[in-house]
Amino acid sequence: MSISFAHRMHHTQPSDIREILLKTAEGGFISFAGGLPDPELFPVELLNELAQKVFRDHSARALQYGPTPGLFPLREKIAALMANIGVATDIDHIQIPSGAQQGISLSGTIFVNPGDTIITERPTYSAAINALDLFRPHYEDIESDEEGPDIEQVRDCVHTGQHVKLAYMIPNFQNPSGRLWTTKRRAAFMDALAGSETLIIEDDPYGQLAFHDQPPQPLKALDEDERVIYLGSFSKVLCPGLRVGWIVASPEILAQYNLAKQFNDLHTSSFDQELINAYLEEAALQPQIDRLRETYASRCAAMISAIEESFPANIHFTQPEGGLFTWVELPKEINSRDLLEIAMDEKVAFIPGDGFFATRPMTNTLRLNFSAMGPEKIKEGIAILGEILHKLIDQNYNLRVEKQRKE
Amino acid sequence: MSISFAHRMHHTQPSDIREILLKTAEGGFISFAGGLPDPELFPVELLNELAQKVFRDHSARALQYGPTPGLFPLREKIAALMANIGVATDIDHIQIPSGAQQGISLSGTIFVNPGDTIITERPTYSAAINALDLFRPHYEDIESDEEGPDIEQVRDCVHTGQHVKLAYMIPNFQNPSGRLWTTKRRAAFMDALAGSETLIIEDDPYGQLAFHDQPPQPLKALDEDERVIYLGSFSKVLCPGLRVGWIVASPEILAQYNLAKQFNDLHTSSFDQELINAYLEEAALQPQIDRLRETYASRCAAMISAIEESFPANIHFTQPEGGLFTWVELPKEINSRDLLEIAMDEKVAFIPGDGFFATRPMTNTLRLNFSAMGPEKIKEGIAILGEILHKLIDQNYNLRVEKQRKE
Repeated sequence: MSISFAHRMHHTQPSDIREILLKTAEGGFISFAGGLPDPELFPVELLNELAQKVFRDHSARALQYGPTPGLFPLREKIAALMANIGVATDIDHIQIPSGAQQGISLSGTIFVNPGDTIITERPTYSAAINALDLFRPHYEDIESDEEGPDIEQVRDCVHTGQHVKLAYMIPNFQNPSGRLWTTKRRAAFMDALAGSETLIIEDDPYGQLAFHDQPPQPLKALDEDERVIYLGSFSKVLCPGLRVGWIVASPEILAQYNLAKQFNDLHTSSFDQELINAYLEEAALQPQIDRLRETYASRCAAMISAIEESFPANIHFTQPEGGLFTWVELPKEINSRDLLEIAMDEKVAFIPGDGFFATRPMTNTLRLNFSAMGPEKIKEGIAILGEILHKLIDQNYNLRVEKQRKE
Repeated sequence: MSISFAHRMHHTQPSDIREILLKTAEGGFISFAGGLPDPELFPVELLNELAQKVFRDHSARALQYGPTPGLFPLREKIAALMANIGVATDIDHIQIPSGAQQGISLSGTIFVNPGDTIITERPTYSAAINALDLFRPHYEDIESDEEGPDIEQVRDCVHTGQHVKLAYMIPNFQNPSGRLWTTKRRAAFMDALAGSETLIIEDDPYGQLAFHDQPPQPLKALDEDERVIYLGSFSKVLCPGLRVGWIVASPEILAQYNLAKQFNDLHTSSFDQELINAYLEEAALQPQIDRLRETYASRCAAMISAIEESFPANIHFTQPEGGLFTWVELPKEINSRDLLEIAMDEKVAFIPGDGFFATRPMTNTLRLNFSAMGPEKIKEGIAILGEILHKLIDQNYNLRVEKQRKE
């Protein structure tokens, strides 16, 4: 029999990242590909103790169906976490999805009709594009520099002609670019949207992972008219295997997220929520975050100095002050997929950057993760990439010279 | 600012069940409303031990991102469970969604364009309708009797005119009706679909809860051309708080489920999957199921005999041989929501049946759950419902007599 899938599936493509991760899982790889926290840093002992406590004190609740918006005491604790970053909120504004990825997917469900316009950064998180593609939007992507998105372009998009339904933005240590919006650019962005009917999906899994400063205040802290829907996650600050994130939105909007969540999977794992609730009760999160900040800061520094040492000079890269990633722009004529092909043979992996654009992909870009291994491995892998890059650029140069000679 | 939600959200409504559950959670209720397993029967001690084992032996895997289709060894064990009910399969046919509800939702995502026809039973599982409504299908619902759906009507639907995309069916101890399709009806149903391009979504959370017999063989066991997509769940045989179900489908179809799952929430909780994997490793599931079968059989018997004792004679109800529910049809002129209103005042709850129809709801129906409490409570609650019903029916009779007198 012939099977006909829904039209929306024709607009989708599998994530590169997960394909490459599968290959590198075979072992022996130095992989800068994942967005994986280092499992060595998971607080296994404490979680084990707390799991026993959950079974002892709350087994009926932890193993039973629970409310769609999420566990009441966990939502209270999340409200307190939000207060720490300048967002006054309460449990009636909070839902607990199965990770922030589900928050993105539910945003598509409740807001996006085919053809609706979504603005994104250049580059932006590839799995967000994948999730939103299902709803067949029109994308306008905004040129962005080290300080954040181009405000003029945002203003043009939002106020001329087309109605922009959503702005999907990652202001803190962005995946993939590692970029942090400046305070000034944040204010300008909110100002550019004032008076419009554009809602902001603010995806903030990395804000707590500021290496040296306090975590930046999110756009949600500047939100005067409940325009911002904030997505938080425990994946990067605790562990991603427990699929627990959070959504902060006005009650009117949250009611729709709750409906969509209920239809999707009823509610997020009760046990996972109880375990994270118990973890927060221990006030264990901040010390854990501080440990991660310190570790990732030194790994990031190792990567940056290795890049400076090994990469050819005409390559641009970000110098992140937090998060998990740096972003590399090669000379325009080099396709990062060519680099990847050679690198994979030498057991080094990364993610080509072209998947991180909603439109007009830049094929000369790549994302490097520095959180998943120690400084020595990082140096080793970056040196290998550097060597290949030198060859690729020389070869390319030779090819061009040869071509010019023939002409 | 005014917020415009996607059109698909205008076609949705919140589930009655979760609203009523919220109210009854306040305590003091005898609630026949939920589809809840009895938390007293959760194997808490063993799960606690196994959780420690997971933390000891597989912490990195249990707390880290995992593959979208699900944990490899768990999928192997699920293949073995399927073999027990006559379905030969392997891990390449299996995905692990966050509960079977997500399997329904993903089915909508990958198959249903607006206007596509879905056939359902009368009645059918309300949360499946809710999930599928988002994709704006056209429903044809099939009259069903004690033996299963009306095969002539199925044949008419599938072979005349319209293309039927999906058939959503619950052949084993259906929610809400408690009905079990006969072997003969199953064969006839598969026969009726032969030659068509209609796929079957077979939802089977209750098959293992056969009170006295072996679990029935699912439609999937009769599936010669990979027409059947089977949805299984650990919610009713182990516990629903760990959100873990499974999908069995052809690799071609499963690839689309995996894409949709990846976009939705990347993968199901790694920890929950590890814990259930460890539980299956202990060969603990079958004894647990046997304990549930015995307990629920006696609770079902208590409910049936209480109904026979307390309810007026002109009320029809099913006599389930498995599962969690019985289904009651009141005299046509009685609306079960009137009954519910009075019953809630007397602290007894159930779910009105009108939400369990994709079209043309029968307002004189209700669903009663018997799994969540002991026989004494069941008798007490049914007696209260019986009293109210007697009054309602008498009153209705008196009203009719009075009306006739006036005429």
